[in-house]
Amino acid sequence: MGQEAKPPYFLGIDLGGTNIKAGVVDRAGKPLSRADLPTHAEKGPVEGVQRICQVGRQAIEKAGLKLADIHSVGVGSPGPMDLKRQIIINPHNLPGWVNLPLAEKVGKELGLRAVLQNDANAAAFGEYWAGAGRGVNSLVQFTLGTGIGCGVVINGVILEGEHSHGAESGHIRIALDRPRYNATGLYGSLEAYASAKAIVERAQESMATGWRSSLENILARGEELTAKDVFDSAAAGDPLGEKLVEETAFYLAVGAVNLMHVIDPNVIVFSGGMIAAGEMFLERIRYHVRRNALPVPAAETLITYAQLGTDAGFIGAAGCAQSKFATSRS
Amino acid sequence: MGQEAKPPYFLGIDLGGTNIKAGVVDRAGKPLSRADLPTHAEKGPVEGVQRICQVGRQAIEKAGLKLADIHSVGVGSPGPMDLKRQIIINPHNLPGWVNLPLAEKVGKELGLRAVLQNDANAAAFGEYWAGAGRGVNSLVQFTLGTGIGCGVVINGVILEGEHSHGAESGHIRIALDRPRYNATGLYGSLEAYASAKAIVERAQESMATGWRSSLENILARGEELTAKDVFDSAAAGDPLGEKLVEETAFYLAVGAVNLMHVIDPNVIVFSGGMIAAGEMFLERIRYHVRRNALPVPAAETLITYAQLGTDAGFIGAAGCAQSKFATSRS
Repeated sequence: MGQEAKPPYFLGIDLGGTNIKAGVVDRAGKPLSRADLPTHAEKGPVEGVQRICQVGRQAIEKAGLKLADIHSVGVGSPGPMDLKRQIIINPHNLPGWVNLPLAEKVGKELGLRAVLQNDANAAAFGEYWAGAGRGVNSLVQFTLGTGIGCGVVINGVILEGEHSHGAESGHIRIALDRPRYNATGLYGSLEAYASAKAIVERAQESMATGWRSSLENILARGEELTAKDVFDSAAAGDPLGEKLVEETAFYLAVGAVNLMHVIDPNVIVFSGGMIAAGEMFLERIRYHVRRNALPVPAAETLITYAQLGTDAGFIGAAGCAQSKFATSRS
Repeated sequence: MGQEAKPPYFLGIDLGGTNIKAGVVDRAGKPLSRADLPTHAEKGPVEGVQRICQVGRQAIEKAGLKLADIHSVGVGSPGPMDLKRQIIINPHNLPGWVNLPLAEKVGKELGLRAVLQNDANAAAFGEYWAGAGRGVNSLVQFTLGTGIGCGVVINGVILEGEHSHGAESGHIRIALDRPRYNATGLYGSLEAYASAKAIVERAQESMATGWRSSLENILARGEELTAKDVFDSAAAGDPLGEKLVEETAFYLAVGAVNLMHVIDPNVIVFSGGMIAAGEMFLERIRYHVRRNALPVPAAETLITYAQLGTDAGFIGAAGCAQSKFATSRS
């Protein structure tokens, strides 16, 4: 437990298709503990809720606290969900978890007030509260993974939308001509061009049309190509790798520009595994943003990387609990 | 003056590059009067402010009221502007009106509290308050003219953005491959494809590449081609006209879908001269929205036309005055 930490404490849970991560945070969003377990989503939602609560209890214990010390709990989950009804509908990577009132189930099991939030929204709220957006008024975050998640926070409030589809901005359409589809079957989306999965697909397509690349060696060894391989090849001077990374920076800049021309936030944050590519990649994104945005937002909007790593999800989920249950008292 | 109208009354002004329109509205956003004058922007901002106030006084008189009956005034103006400082910076169609504290000038001249708002934001707020969005929680409006304006209202609050560039969504990028530029020099924007100006350009480009069309007759007469001509030709069965109208519906649907995947509003409203194309055109936009949005927003989001016509600007500007100055009293 942190030396200066004082109650109230909030429990945050970040539910994913593969792992459940949890942590206890203080009123400033500082983590006092971390715990995780595999989700085993295939075992179904009843056992799933038990495991979520198990990870939560582990996090509380690791923080040197008791359940009675916890003010409330927030749960971040993959969508689609109905935030007004606080249920998850049928998440792609939680098969069989259908129309599940996740906040109610977890809250009842732990004896705590509980709130459900979209995972990308929760991660954005984490960075807003305690990370790259600390102190700003509004933030847009893109989480770059197999897909592209997005979260928007304005004046401390998550943009949930009227049908829980606020900030589903991996699905904004940026290119109409080329038939690149994403998992939803919609073509031309940001996700279809700039997700980790899309980068691998674009590499394979380029090689299929005659590009020579050091990436061919990976395929020749029978290994699976990853987005990291593409970034590594670019760092080593592979021309195809360099081309793909530069194009990815451009696509992400277009995503940023489009959100700047809708939300006009103080800061655009990129998070997820891809930011391991480092400062050079961020500079290329910034370059394309400056060239493609209107002059004022181009000059004024901070474009940066996330700071909380994989903690952002549970920190933000805990922050949602604080926002919902602890705003007018301490 | 409306029979059932009761104070407070608000004055709304809609400043354009060509005309100034004003009206008095009641607390429900109902217009009691309308007045207008040419802007004569070229005569500069000092005379401009005088003319704005002249139109405002005419509207008050036409409503059978006196200046003392008016609670406060809202002014909608073309941007760019700095809403925090309440100044217009250098609007393209108000040349020489630079860094002008328009609200302060108008307010001082009339002796009323005054607020400045972006014209497209004001029009969106008008429809939200008293038109197509009456009773909903959130609205996105696209105003289709020479350019494409946009306004977003969430929970009764205009999305102004941190740098007064909220909802500059005519400038979202929807196509990356084709070098179609708009007035800002940014290529591939919604405005570069679907504004009235872009429709005419696309018609001319198609004819230049060999399309035969009844539109050639207009050019042969030495007349200037308009977007209305294109819509009229489509209605008369001209194949090029039909193609251009269908493509325009698709582009506007992509704009709507992108805002649905960021804001997720209750309703998307299209306004401006182009909606004279009627219900068939709206149905084509709806068709493409349903095919290109995620399932929940595709099913739940109302796509409709504006209801207030050219009154929306002054009604919304008056509504901004009410929001700012009359929220906690009557």
